Amino acid sequence: MKNPLAPKALRLHESEPAGKIEIVPSKPCADGNDLSLAYTPGVAAPCLAIRDDPEAAWRYTGRGNLVGVITNGTAVLGLGNIGALAGKPVMEGKALLFKRFAGIDAVDLELDTECPAAFCDAVSLLEPSFGGINLEDIKAPECFEIEERLRAGMGIPVFHDDQHGTAVVVAAALMNALHLTGRKPDEARVAISGAGAAGIAVARHLLRIGVRRSHLVLCDIHGIVYKGRREGMHRWLSSLASSRPAGTLGDALEGADVFIGVSAPRIVTPAMLRKMRPDPIIFALANPVPEIEYDAAREARPDAVIATGRSDLPNQVNNLLGFPFLFRGALDVRASTINDEMKLAASKALADLARRPVPAAVLKAYGLNRLTFGRGYLLPKPFDPRLLETVPPAVAAAAMESGVARAPIVDLDAYRRRLRSAARRLVARFAR
Amino acid sequence: MKNPLAPKALRLHESEPAGKIEIVPSKPCADGNDLSLAYTPGVAAPCLAIRDDPEAAWRYTGRGNLVGVITNGTAVLGLGNIGALAGKPVMEGKALLFKRFAGIDAVDLELDTECPAAFCDAVSLLEPSFGGINLEDIKAPECFEIEERLRAGMGIPVFHDDQHGTAVVVAAALMNALHLTGRKPDEARVAISGAGAAGIAVARHLLRIGVRRSHLVLCDIHGIVYKGRREGMHRWLSSLASSRPAGTLGDALEGADVFIGVSAPRIVTPAMLRKMRPDPIIFALANPVPEIEYDAAREARPDAVIATGRSDLPNQVNNLLGFPFLFRGALDVRASTINDEMKLAASKALADLARRPVPAAVLKAYGLNRLTFGRGYLLPKPFDPRLLETVPPAVAAAAMESGVARAPIVDLDAYRRRLRSAARRLVARFAR
Repeated sequence: MKNPLAPKALRLHESEPAGKIEIVPSKPCADGNDLSLAYTPGVAAPCLAIRDDPEAAWRYTGRGNLVGVITNGTAVLGLGNIGALAGKPVMEGKALLFKRFAGIDAVDLELDTECPAAFCDAVSLLEPSFGGINLEDIKAPECFEIEERLRAGMGIPVFHDDQHGTAVVVAAALMNALHLTGRKPDEARVAISGAGAAGIAVARHLLRIGVRRSHLVLCDIHGIVYKGRREGMHRWLSSLASSRPAGTLGDALEGADVFIGVSAPRIVTPAMLRKMRPDPIIFALANPVPEIEYDAAREARPDAVIATGRSDLPNQVNNLLGFPFLFRGALDVRASTINDEMKLAASKALADLARRPVPAAVLKAYGLNRLTFGRGYLLPKPFDPRLLETVPPAVAAAAMESGVARAPIVDLDAYRRRLRSAARRLVARFAR
Repeated sequence: MKNPLAPKALRLHESEPAGKIEIVPSKPCADGNDLSLAYTPGVAAPCLAIRDDPEAAWRYTGRGNLVGVITNGTAVLGLGNIGALAGKPVMEGKALLFKRFAGIDAVDLELDTECPAAFCDAVSLLEPSFGGINLEDIKAPECFEIEERLRAGMGIPVFHDDQHGTAVVVAAALMNALHLTGRKPDEARVAISGAGAAGIAVARHLLRIGVRRSHLVLCDIHGIVYKGRREGMHRWLSSLASSRPAGTLGDALEGADVFIGVSAPRIVTPAMLRKMRPDPIIFALANPVPEIEYDAAREARPDAVIATGRSDLPNQVNNLLGFPFLFRGALDVRASTINDEMKLAASKALADLARRPVPAAVLKAYGLNRLTFGRGYLLPKPFDPRLLETVPPAVAAAAMESGVARAPIVDLDAYRRRLRSAARRLVARFAR
């Protein structure tokens, strides 16, 4: 596929210093006195403190603000299994986003293996290095096995963003779309196209926002995922199989309220959309080419609420609205995991934020005169500085309520104020 | 042991942001246009370029300037096996030093395992992430097995600094001490105390600078390492066993020209030193308390050339003179390894630099009026900005000559000039 940004993007990546992240001292190192504190002999003091009390590592090292962005390169963007090394630009990009949007230090690690066990063994050993693990671009179904095993074995959050980041943001957009079309979640009939990492995680997460399992149909390349189907099944998919008979995506869309595509370009036709109910919700999120082009969808269904994965169209469903803030909240209470409650809290916080009046700074950043909650504005904009003060406190509170916060925050209002200042500093620091 | 710097060091480590390194975007991320190049959709271009040609990773990612500082925490400083997590402050410190002194991005990874095979499996998988691996603070003899296996299996430099960094700097100091005392390397009788990572690597490296195997005696807690000894032997030690009979460190020092201690505090007595030859060379490098205190050594042997590991005494033998510059040179020619030739070149370059007149800036940095090559100044000072323009070109040239440079530098003079500018920028950037 031709990428009009390719020449510019390549120039950016190769410009000195090559790549997109840099690792710099955060403490003085101007002279020998500085080094005697940051390195020998002074450094022995924090080492011994941590030896005597492992909890001291959160205090004396960067661990509490450090996330490993880890991949094996088996499902990179829409490019497929291009290998660990070729995935590095995406992982570096993710590290850049972690810092820019949430002040989190993140480093990319590319593991040269397609073997889930070997991958897990390596990542498990890295636990002392990090405060959290963001798994990225690992193909299904291996990603489920990997995440399951790591979550069970590690005492820090392990979060596969292709699954849960997507699910959190899709759910936020869907909550608002349902609200705008006068539906309750438990009334909505939902057809999901794509039964990979994103599709399965979205399906699971929608159950948490109140969608009924009986109203949910997953489709993949073999059609409807139904109970008893043989092709392409695995245990993570079986648990979501529908009681409906075999059928196509077209069959699944007939009478559906909601279409969520996290699959492949141009697999949905206008005719299929015309069989959906009135005021359909159409999230065609395949990127860069959606399941059906925006204009075609709009023409087929003028009454639809439409979202895509593209930044040049309204309602971009963008993981960037999720992972920086989920990790910010999780790290700030030293959560041992990112659980369903925290993901749900993030979805709700995102949905709520979109309903609030948009500050002038956001309008300016996007060159807009007006932005009001509605069919064309379901989700906050990624450069909305309120995200940082809004989502992490919700995530942190959910972590505390669900008992996974090892360092609860007593004063959430003060925390919100700190985050507001942090957001301002990030904007200033990374302005042109 | 009481550490007078402990309170200050702890405050430094816990001051916001906790720890000592930070990971920051090196490319613009101020708005959506920036992100469309650094992340989707633009990022697909470098990914595809690397998929089609893995060499493109050096061009489009930070890999070529990125070193993993990796430990399992089994031999941290002089603190022993304090575990991976407790080693983190040292590793972060090392990352800080890599950036400050050589502009290299380095990230610390602490692996929670004492099993060499598990450690190697994990590190091997990380190869696509890095341009080089600095192993750190891993106990002997496991460190030998680990390094051997990783070097054999990986296509990037794997360098255990406790071994080779120490050896490179010790050899540089020794070359100059031999010169000043009118000895040739092949005449010097050398007794080494300590048969761990440093001792064994020093012994091997001294053979490369011309010390005769028959003139070299290693001692450890069991005394002289002699052929046929049973206690505490392993294959890396056996190959260095002496033909001498069993004996103590005191026996080994009798008639020795050189003592090199990389072992334990206060194990050498004045009486032992008095049995050494005239103009003895005494490197008592155990840190922070040397094998014999400086004053005691000086009193016992007014004719000695003395070095220690301490920054508050003359002739500090400091790894900081080695690893940043070895990696700088290796990375800049994309060396597949750091081989003996490169280490030898580094030792020679360091020794040569100490013989050159010291610029005013260095005197000023150390508050000195004069610093002249001689018994009190065997090695360059760590904050000497000439290190960066001097050592890496020597290392790079050795890599090219020995055939391990995958991206040879055609114009070494231009390279030197670039390094000189880089050194100036580093000084300015990290000044108070």
